[in-house]
Amino acid sequence: MWKVVWATLLLLATVCAQRGYAKETKGAPKVGHVSVVIVGGTGDLAKKYLWQGFFHLYANQVSSGYSFSFYGGGLLPKDKATPFLFEALKGVVCPRELSVERCALVKEQFLKLAEYWQLKTSEDYQALGKHLTEQLTQEGIVEAGRLFYLSVPAFAYADIAERINNSCRPTDGAWLRVVLEKPFGHDFSSAQLLSTQLGTSLKDEEMYRIDHYLGKQVVSKILPFRRENSKHLDPIWNKHHIERVEIVLKETLDARGRIPFYDQYGVIRDVIQNHLTEVMTLLTMGLPANLSDVKEVLRNKLKIFSALQHLDRNCATIGQYQNYNLEVQEELNKTKEYYSLTPTFAGIMVHIDIAQYEKMPIILTSGKMLDERLGYARILFKNDIFCVQSHNSVHCKPKQIVFYFGHGTLQYPAILVSKNLFKPDLMDTEWKEITEHKDVSVLGMPISDYYVLTPTVQREAYAELISHIFQGRKDSFISTENLLASWGFWTPLLHGLAKTSPRLYPGGADNGNMLDFKLLGREVNFANEAVVMIPQDHMGGSGAESFQVMQGKYRSAEMVSAWPEELIVRLAADLQASAEKAVREGGRFHLALSGGSSPLALFQRLARHHYSFPWRDTHVWMVDERCVPLTELDSNFRTLHDHLLQHVKMPYFNIHPMPVQMNQRLCVEEDSGALLYESEINQLVNASSFHFVLLGVGYDGHTASLFPGSKLDAHGDSLVALTESPAKPHQRMSLTLRAINQAQKVGVLVMGKSKHELVTQLSRVKDNPNKWPITGIRPTSGRLVWYIDYDALLG
Amino acid sequence: MWKVVWATLLLLATVCAQRGYAKETKGAPKVGHVSVVIVGGTGDLAKKYLWQGFFHLYANQVSSGYSFSFYGGGLLPKDKATPFLFEALKGVVCPRELSVERCALVKEQFLKLAEYWQLKTSEDYQALGKHLTEQLTQEGIVEAGRLFYLSVPAFAYADIAERINNSCRPTDGAWLRVVLEKPFGHDFSSAQLLSTQLGTSLKDEEMYRIDHYLGKQVVSKILPFRRENSKHLDPIWNKHHIERVEIVLKETLDARGRIPFYDQYGVIRDVIQNHLTEVMTLLTMGLPANLSDVKEVLRNKLKIFSALQHLDRNCATIGQYQNYNLEVQEELNKTKEYYSLTPTFAGIMVHIDIAQYEKMPIILTSGKMLDERLGYARILFKNDIFCVQSHNSVHCKPKQIVFYFGHGTLQYPAILVSKNLFKPDLMDTEWKEITEHKDVSVLGMPISDYYVLTPTVQREAYAELISHIFQGRKDSFISTENLLASWGFWTPLLHGLAKTSPRLYPGGADNGNMLDFKLLGREVNFANEAVVMIPQDHMGGSGAESFQVMQGKYRSAEMVSAWPEELIVRLAADLQASAEKAVREGGRFHLALSGGSSPLALFQRLARHHYSFPWRDTHVWMVDERCVPLTELDSNFRTLHDHLLQHVKMPYFNIHPMPVQMNQRLCVEEDSGALLYESEINQLVNASSFHFVLLGVGYDGHTASLFPGSKLDAHGDSLVALTESPAKPHQRMSLTLRAINQAQKVGVLVMGKSKHELVTQLSRVKDNPNKWPITGIRPTSGRLVWYIDYDALLG
Repeated sequence: MWKVVWATLLLLATVCAQRGYAKETKGAPKVGHVSVVIVGGTGDLAKKYLWQGFFHLYANQVSSGYSFSFYGGGLLPKDKATPFLFEALKGVVCPRELSVERCALVKEQFLKLAEYWQLKTSEDYQALGKHLTEQLTQEGIVEAGRLFYLSVPAFAYADIAERINNSCRPTDGAWLRVVLEKPFGHDFSSAQLLSTQLGTSLKDEEMYRIDHYLGKQVVSKILPFRRENSKHLDPIWNKHHIERVEIVLKETLDARGRIPFYDQYGVIRDVIQNHLTEVMTLLTMGLPANLSDVKEVLRNKLKIFSALQHLDRNCATIGQYQNYNLEVQEELNKTKEYYSLTPTFAGIMVHIDIAQYEKMPIILTSGKMLDERLGYARILFKNDIFCVQSHNSVHCKPKQIVFYFGHGTLQYPAILVSKNLFKPDLMDTEWKEITEHKDVSVLGMPISDYYVLTPTVQREAYAELISHIFQGRKDSFISTENLLASWGFWTPLLHGLAKTSPRLYPGGADNGNMLDFKLLGREVNFANEAVVMIPQDHMGGSGAESFQVMQGKYRSAEMVSAWPEELIVRLAADLQASAEKAVREGGRFHLALSGGSSPLALFQRLARHHYSFPWRDTHVWMVDERCVPLTELDSNFRTLHDHLLQHVKMPYFNIHPMPVQMNQRLCVEEDSGALLYESEINQLVNASSFHFVLLGVGYDGHTASLFPGSKLDAHGDSLVALTESPAKPHQRMSLTLRAINQAQKVGVLVMGKSKHELVTQLSRVKDNPNKWPITGIRPTSGRLVWYIDYDALLG
Repeated sequence: MWKVVWATLLLLATVCAQRGYAKETKGAPKVGHVSVVIVGGTGDLAKKYLWQGFFHLYANQVSSGYSFSFYGGGLLPKDKATPFLFEALKGVVCPRELSVERCALVKEQFLKLAEYWQLKTSEDYQALGKHLTEQLTQEGIVEAGRLFYLSVPAFAYADIAERINNSCRPTDGAWLRVVLEKPFGHDFSSAQLLSTQLGTSLKDEEMYRIDHYLGKQVVSKILPFRRENSKHLDPIWNKHHIERVEIVLKETLDARGRIPFYDQYGVIRDVIQNHLTEVMTLLTMGLPANLSDVKEVLRNKLKIFSALQHLDRNCATIGQYQNYNLEVQEELNKTKEYYSLTPTFAGIMVHIDIAQYEKMPIILTSGKMLDERLGYARILFKNDIFCVQSHNSVHCKPKQIVFYFGHGTLQYPAILVSKNLFKPDLMDTEWKEITEHKDVSVLGMPISDYYVLTPTVQREAYAELISHIFQGRKDSFISTENLLASWGFWTPLLHGLAKTSPRLYPGGADNGNMLDFKLLGREVNFANEAVVMIPQDHMGGSGAESFQVMQGKYRSAEMVSAWPEELIVRLAADLQASAEKAVREGGRFHLALSGGSSPLALFQRLARHHYSFPWRDTHVWMVDERCVPLTELDSNFRTLHDHLLQHVKMPYFNIHPMPVQMNQRLCVEEDSGALLYESEINQLVNASSFHFVLLGVGYDGHTASLFPGSKLDAHGDSLVALTESPAKPHQRMSLTLRAINQAQKVGVLVMGKSKHELVTQLSRVKDNPNKWPITGIRPTSGRLVWYIDYDALLG
């Protein structure tokens, strides 16, 4: 039976291929011809979604005056591949609104218009290009455009784009649209490279990067929903009312069969960097005045990207289902000793540093082999009601809005709004309210406690997007800027996690609470302590991966050494301990801080993790300053301000920038800025002895702004001096050796491979402050501690 | 039958009264004699709790070597009152640990020791004093102390205390303890007056003010529980982990029969100012190193009181059960037109302004005629777990600690700790863990999800406290400082609510959600909008009670007028509108602010309610400054700093204090501070034209620091000048008329009845800046707006 049908189709196709352009419904105005080429037209995606999507497009447009031809392209020769193509084609189904008779007719027409075309070599593309043009000329039809859908591995994109550009461009003002499927690179630089390569062949407006999440009806309704309900949402769409945002994609499947691809990518690259991130921007971006203004939408999206707080590996937990490694060993032909670190689960917390969302946790989570298939974004509002009585009424329940993408208990896409929030507007006729429900529960609440909106007709994401491509609606696609912004955000985390062992989980219901994670300040951690870890020695990393902190001696002083992040954690903890001790004993903590880039991570750590640091009783002083206005970006104070002071609650009076600018000029001797700072120190700091002075050290051995060869003895008893740097800006103000050596504790922070040579050299030289100013640091009665990371220590 | 028993008791009592001191158990060392006098010994409280409590004390101490005598005092003559006393006495029951035989014996002894004594006149007290001394002498017993329990209306305290002092003080080093029952005043000044009056007769250490909540076993275990479990609690007992604290006392009864008392007090004075506030301090105070160090406990409590944020009427919702007013009309013989505004329900949100608890809501709620009888304090922790699967496991449930005072579903006192928090230590043998439960739910969670601790033996609060009085444990009582601190905190709210109409509620289950309230920033509001309000014209208040804001003209300039709070709301809104406009148009908002007390409410309003104020782009300048160091409390900048700047996130560079201190001296002409400030203005402010200048006006018509008779013309073109004030500190720095009149908008804020005369006067005078500097404010191209509250406008 099947054979017969199949033979018929094949016959029809052959006929149509010979006829070139079938006649379409009579009487429609001829607005032009569209040629559709699916490169990879017999592949999985094409079979499952693309032909179906194009068939829908055809069915919808058949009376519009457009004419179409469809080409399935592939590497195989035509005779071998045509059966595969028709296997893919025969399964397409009609949109519901079509009658059975009409459907049969339209489908027959569609099949006549589809043809296989071998697309392997440049010559194949030349032939196709020639064919397209000839057909148009022969039939005397105006061309509307050419649509190439690249359903092939990403490594082939650049070549294919080049061939399209060389041989298949339409002329006479018809459009060219080339559709690309993810992955678009695997990190920022590869994405950038790919974009540059594609950019040599295609204009930006010709590229349509698909993120099929943007075709999901619920996702594409996020902005219109926010607009339509802005009366209700505006007052509550902020950190004051939102407890947290969760964007979740749970899968029950494993990665079997896709390992060669998946193991290179992992869950963050596979679905979080793209799908979940897009949802996040739609939920948080400023509402454009015009929702269909592509540029304004993009601009507002990019604002969110630029305000995303930098992620480090403490912002994520990762897991891997237990069988994954076996699958990797099998599919990649690895030995039993091979361990993949690719995560199949990730829980990540993101923050947006704009006033509206500051400190509001946004949780992005996805994983394979979980207990259910489900995708949603949930905005959970704060519980701001105190229920005196009737705790069980709707009124006292959680308030939330759920964008339910599909699957799960509900099994249909929907937007759900808790009844104790507001009754949402229906938006348009494409959405309807459901008031009769099965007895199901969605995210902890019975469905009857929600207003439930659902699309009148459910549409498949690919069909939606294919129709948008045809309409040239670029807002449903990922622009280059958007793509690079997203990779720019995710890449540091991906690199940071590269050597981190994922927690192993059994899969399915057995996971229990294993993957639950805890939000603590800026960090997330698995909530359940019972960790199943891959043994350390299987990891291939060095022993130091276990994050221990090493204590030792350096230049006959104390030394603390560790990997960079752990070193900062340790230094911050030491600072807090010093601060608490000083405040306990004398009510004040006097801290002098240096400029430079090394302390940045420290400032961030202090601002984000040290809630209980006694800032109110801490005075912050500068170790040194460049003679530039304090508001300039290269002012040490400005750096300190932006990365630390601005984020903690500290009295204005406790902040002591160096007075480098006086009488509207910089570091002029007569203005006595150094003396002024010295007298401020004498006045406020007990015995002019700081509790903690944090120093760095330069490649030339300078510390503070005390440079080699500058006769440090000349400072005499001064605590503060004007100095000269060999580097610009030359003029500096600095604490003197005397001021530093009077401190109760001096920490010297040295980080990075580039400091390794210096660290080696310094370990050998004798004290000679005029040649190596750092060697002049010898606290008279205080402690000196070197904080040196493994990169600097071990090279 | 009763009559016979009663006659027997009466007979026994007569016998014992003649014998003076009964012999106690033989063989115990005689450590001294204690005389107990319950003034009001036949009243309700004595009948219900006090005699029972003293009987317990007696039963526990009978073998300790102390001997006792008990006197019930009252206004009636002895023969009339003795039957009432014995009616009260006969009901006492033995502690469980006593056998039936032993109980009968002890009770018989106790009854023998109790006697009625008329205590009406000074002579009665003299007679009692004489009697006490004589008895001791006759029997040759050393005296340990005298305990007077004043169970009488508070108005009688001062007289009785004076009489005790005059006639009943023990000699020879025996102690005197006088126990007082609430109410201790009805606001700060009455409490202070009462304390002063009592202080003339009694030393502070002789006064024992009872708050029976402190005798509740769960309440008195709060500090020990926090200490014993500090390992678990220390990391989470702060704003970062606590979502909110609820302290709740719900009653089902009405106030019937107590109206003459209750209508004077209402729910806040009756139970919130005392019981719930005490619980709040115990939950939040710093743990003293030694829990029984009364001074340290008090010191730590007072720290909490001093850090409590000022409450205004927006921090509270109040209600009154519907029948209350009828009861008032009946019991107070009022007409049908009379409406009482006394609240029988209140929901209040409190904040503690110390780093540990900043912005953490503490909810105090109590009411009569609610759905259940229940008292508890609940510490609800933040939901910081993201549950990937198994949402129903304990792990994903709310985390809370409940101090359950009694009643409710549980019916016994207990401390409950969610199992997903930690397993609490058992503390001591007086507490036990309960592991078998009825199937009940406590605050939204089944009891089986908690660890449950309960006292091994339940004790009545009065019995506990009476034993503490005997032991001299002052930590269980309210010291004068504690009392005044509490009234100091509550009085402004009570006054603020004095004219506010409570929401009416039907009582019981019918209340439904009517009383639920919503927390929004610093405010609370009823959550359910359907308000039943007593009609406005029944309220007796003026029409202006309806809070409208009035627009008009004053001195031919714009005027906005309203009641004080609404005026501040309006001014803050106007400021924000100006700020947003300026930032939209030029990226910066330059705001110049004045000192004085009027703007304080404005600063607080801005800090607490204006989340979206564009602080990051706002520059704050000073209108004027006193020549004192900026850190001094009377510096205008210091006030601005503490009330506004410290609470908003503003770059350091945008804050512009006046440089009154230079070269370690104040406002010296040669230091050119005024010039420096002027050049800063010229440099940063476009056309040196501030966007908004906020002024006040003094009784003498001064504004900024421009005083009458100071030749303002002499400032010439200067923007900043040194000036002289007739009041201390004399030296000032001030913006000049020129600088102010260049502004785009100038607001003059005038508040309070004391400004009424000035407002009237100014409305009549012509412009004469040298006599009335404020009349020199005539913006050249900007707007002048007067913000005058009704008090100042209408007197």
